[in-house]
Amino acid sequence: MESILRNEASEQRLLSIDLSPEVFREEGHKIIDEIATLISSIRNHAVTPAPTPGSLQEKLPATMPLAGMDPSSVMTETWNLLLENSLFNSHPRFWGYITSSPAPTGILGDLMASAINSNCGAFVLAPIATKIEKQTIQWLGSFIGFPAGGGVMVSGGNMANFIGFLAARKAKANWDIRKLGLHVLQGKWRVYTSAETHTWINKAVDLFGLGLDSIRWIPVDTHQKMSLSLLEKSIEEDKRQGFVPLMIIGTAGSVGTGAVDSLKQIGDLCKKYDCWFHVDGAYGGFAAALPELKGLFAGIELADSVAIDPHKWLYSPLEAGCALVKDPSVLTDAFSFHPVYYNFESKEEIQTNFYESGLQNSRGFRALKVWLEFRHLGAEGHMQLIREDIQLAKRFFELLKETREIEAFTQHLSITTFRYKPHGIDRESGQEYLNKLNQTLLDRLQAGGQVFPSNAVLDDNFLLRTCIVNFRTRFSDLKEFLSIVLNEGRLIHEQMQKANGNTLS
Amino acid sequence: MESILRNEASEQRLLSIDLSPEVFREEGHKIIDEIATLISSIRNHAVTPAPTPGSLQEKLPATMPLAGMDPSSVMTETWNLLLENSLFNSHPRFWGYITSSPAPTGILGDLMASAINSNCGAFVLAPIATKIEKQTIQWLGSFIGFPAGGGVMVSGGNMANFIGFLAARKAKANWDIRKLGLHVLQGKWRVYTSAETHTWINKAVDLFGLGLDSIRWIPVDTHQKMSLSLLEKSIEEDKRQGFVPLMIIGTAGSVGTGAVDSLKQIGDLCKKYDCWFHVDGAYGGFAAALPELKGLFAGIELADSVAIDPHKWLYSPLEAGCALVKDPSVLTDAFSFHPVYYNFESKEEIQTNFYESGLQNSRGFRALKVWLEFRHLGAEGHMQLIREDIQLAKRFFELLKETREIEAFTQHLSITTFRYKPHGIDRESGQEYLNKLNQTLLDRLQAGGQVFPSNAVLDDNFLLRTCIVNFRTRFSDLKEFLSIVLNEGRLIHEQMQKANGNTLS
Repeated sequence: MESILRNEASEQRLLSIDLSPEVFREEGHKIIDEIATLISSIRNHAVTPAPTPGSLQEKLPATMPLAGMDPSSVMTETWNLLLENSLFNSHPRFWGYITSSPAPTGILGDLMASAINSNCGAFVLAPIATKIEKQTIQWLGSFIGFPAGGGVMVSGGNMANFIGFLAARKAKANWDIRKLGLHVLQGKWRVYTSAETHTWINKAVDLFGLGLDSIRWIPVDTHQKMSLSLLEKSIEEDKRQGFVPLMIIGTAGSVGTGAVDSLKQIGDLCKKYDCWFHVDGAYGGFAAALPELKGLFAGIELADSVAIDPHKWLYSPLEAGCALVKDPSVLTDAFSFHPVYYNFESKEEIQTNFYESGLQNSRGFRALKVWLEFRHLGAEGHMQLIREDIQLAKRFFELLKETREIEAFTQHLSITTFRYKPHGIDRESGQEYLNKLNQTLLDRLQAGGQVFPSNAVLDDNFLLRTCIVNFRTRFSDLKEFLSIVLNEGRLIHEQMQKANGNTLS
Repeated sequence: MESILRNEASEQRLLSIDLSPEVFREEGHKIIDEIATLISSIRNHAVTPAPTPGSLQEKLPATMPLAGMDPSSVMTETWNLLLENSLFNSHPRFWGYITSSPAPTGILGDLMASAINSNCGAFVLAPIATKIEKQTIQWLGSFIGFPAGGGVMVSGGNMANFIGFLAARKAKANWDIRKLGLHVLQGKWRVYTSAETHTWINKAVDLFGLGLDSIRWIPVDTHQKMSLSLLEKSIEEDKRQGFVPLMIIGTAGSVGTGAVDSLKQIGDLCKKYDCWFHVDGAYGGFAAALPELKGLFAGIELADSVAIDPHKWLYSPLEAGCALVKDPSVLTDAFSFHPVYYNFESKEEIQTNFYESGLQNSRGFRALKVWLEFRHLGAEGHMQLIREDIQLAKRFFELLKETREIEAFTQHLSITTFRYKPHGIDRESGQEYLNKLNQTLLDRLQAGGQVFPSNAVLDDNFLLRTCIVNFRTRFSDLKEFLSIVLNEGRLIHEQMQKANGNTLS
């Protein structure tokens, strides 16, 4: 082996994972063609075949392959495996959680990014990629009307919110937190956030050492906005007891209902109590771009940091999140270290090295797809798509309100919540029954493959929920969804009544 | 607007970011062809054109585009922009830091993953993707001989190491750390790690609330391994002073020199002192697969957690990191929350929902490229590639040792360190001069475009460093590199002597 290398490796290695240009071209074209076919025939597919883990196991290799196989067979097999056993959020009837249909330009952006393989940790390693990331961050700020002095692309909403949280922690610590850690403040910090906040805040206070006790969950009002009076009362009480208000989180598009908190008033309270103002706009922040919604988002410009996810409402393929900050130095303060083995200090011009602005050192080129999508459709095009998603949700809500057997609950941005409520079941005394019915209904809908909603829980009511961040959805899809809900709902109600020994009137 | 929607949106939206199958096919083929050409002509490109930030600014749009443009022009413009202004780690002469050349099968894997857009946070959202991720994790464990009970794919080395760190923190806290946070232990935890550890550990203790004071930097011995005697001495001293040893980190392939700590002995100390044993094998861990190196990595199987990065030595495109753990429950203990708006609880079979195993909730499909590469080349193929990278590094080191004007320092795994040392400069008294010379040399090499090494700092000596995780590198590339080093080194020495008013003898 050694002798062979000595003789031959100068000009040729013994084995390669490389593909010849011919094979790469052939395999690449094949996959591109398959994707084109999938995109254009997506309505012929189930949203998901909803397979069980066990049924999938036998479709995979039994053990780690020791020998290789020809790339063409691997690619074909793999594509078919994915095609037959995946949930498609590119389907026009996928409205679950908050994952958008991926824009085809974004898919091609990911292909280019992967081929160039820029390591966006440092400018010297990724010159044009770093510039494109910087520009993408600026555009995202401009788009939503937030004066972003800086920011960083991240994997998604959790990480984008974590960045804001960690920037706050560092900026507000009046001791050397990097050196001494968190124990100095003796658990006195308090974080104020709506009871409807996404679970990122639970993860954040846990991982970053404050503990769940540091969260003050502020109830929402009847419009699902954080109650300002209860917020201020909570802060005042905490201060009296010697706690230190660290930050207030404004949610701009809550995960459950899409509600947007009163950002202007929260910003004013942050000023009054010297708190960091973070806005979780991972989903809803994009709607701030619409002139007709400027009032709803007024105050977002007061934030110190904003989380916003292009893979939510700019239709980027996963992963694309972004943390925006007003003052770029808060990121380097929180994240910058300078190991001796990096030669990234600029000698002449100022260079941005993104490894100093977040948790990652090596970083992929997430910005490219977002930047491409902005260029392909323009900001006004994106505004129009967001506007249409919202209009569809509003029309759907109107339709639900007019429908007997449906109880429509909320409609904010592009999220609508409702439940199936059969005749004769009281919403108060029948809550448990209705929750069970709608949970069963959701399970069947999600497994049925025709549509894919998810759920919200509001005042202990289990609700169906559609979040339209889907440029392929048409109103006819929502009408069809409603008729499926009614059919399935009636069926389940009947079964539950029978099981309870009742007959339907 | 509203009226138009009411009339027409049932069957057609006003605007779409979609591409027709014809356009997608055409643009996709174009990019695939460009990538094939790049791959096959990579030697004709500079490793990097080393542009300045200012020179790139004018190549970008001046402002956020309001209107869109046709996708074909955007794609062509963008590809050319990337091609002309990027550093290529796919170049056979890129040996900087630890980023591998991306495998073409991995690039096609990223394309498929982006098109399917699986959200790998939950099984129902990503059925086959979740299974493939689970299998990839198992294969990675098998490959390196670590009995992985579980794990999670992450963005890279920082995150993979963070996962191990956070699992340790949770497992070793004897109070309700999630509820109360970190202040309870009053800064008593201590973390033991080699002085050569990657900066992830600085970020970890900072972000996760222990503070830099919690790190005990253990000096390395003359073979760049963490000194076991100093390690144990440090633990004993800390215990006497009332500190609590939390974890010991074994580095399996240090970032500077590639040294592998004595894992077996560290594992024994972890047992003795009831510490968590984490191995940072982000780069070097893969070499544990080679039978001829089993001795070097003996003890890796004792670890509680291991970080390993397929984008380092399995030639995956960015991003692909992986955290492996022996006991899968440590991940759910550390990361699992169950928000009411998730309907992910399995009703029948046990399902893996990866959002419960790490920091992210929404997650891309990183495993696919790694899984594809394993299938394409097989485990034995990957072992062979790693073996060849190491052999090249060894041969290069031998060549360096035989070369006058070169001082060869270290060679571990596929990393080699050395410096240019002109005749007549003493290594002790001339250290400052040599450091300046080699720093200048590195800057010129990195900007020159012919080769791309990086640096290490060893005993205050500034060294050149090559890390071969590159399936395209041949020995002739390294010979050529040496002659460039000698030419440039002589030139710089001459210039420095002149500037000092000396003439060369």
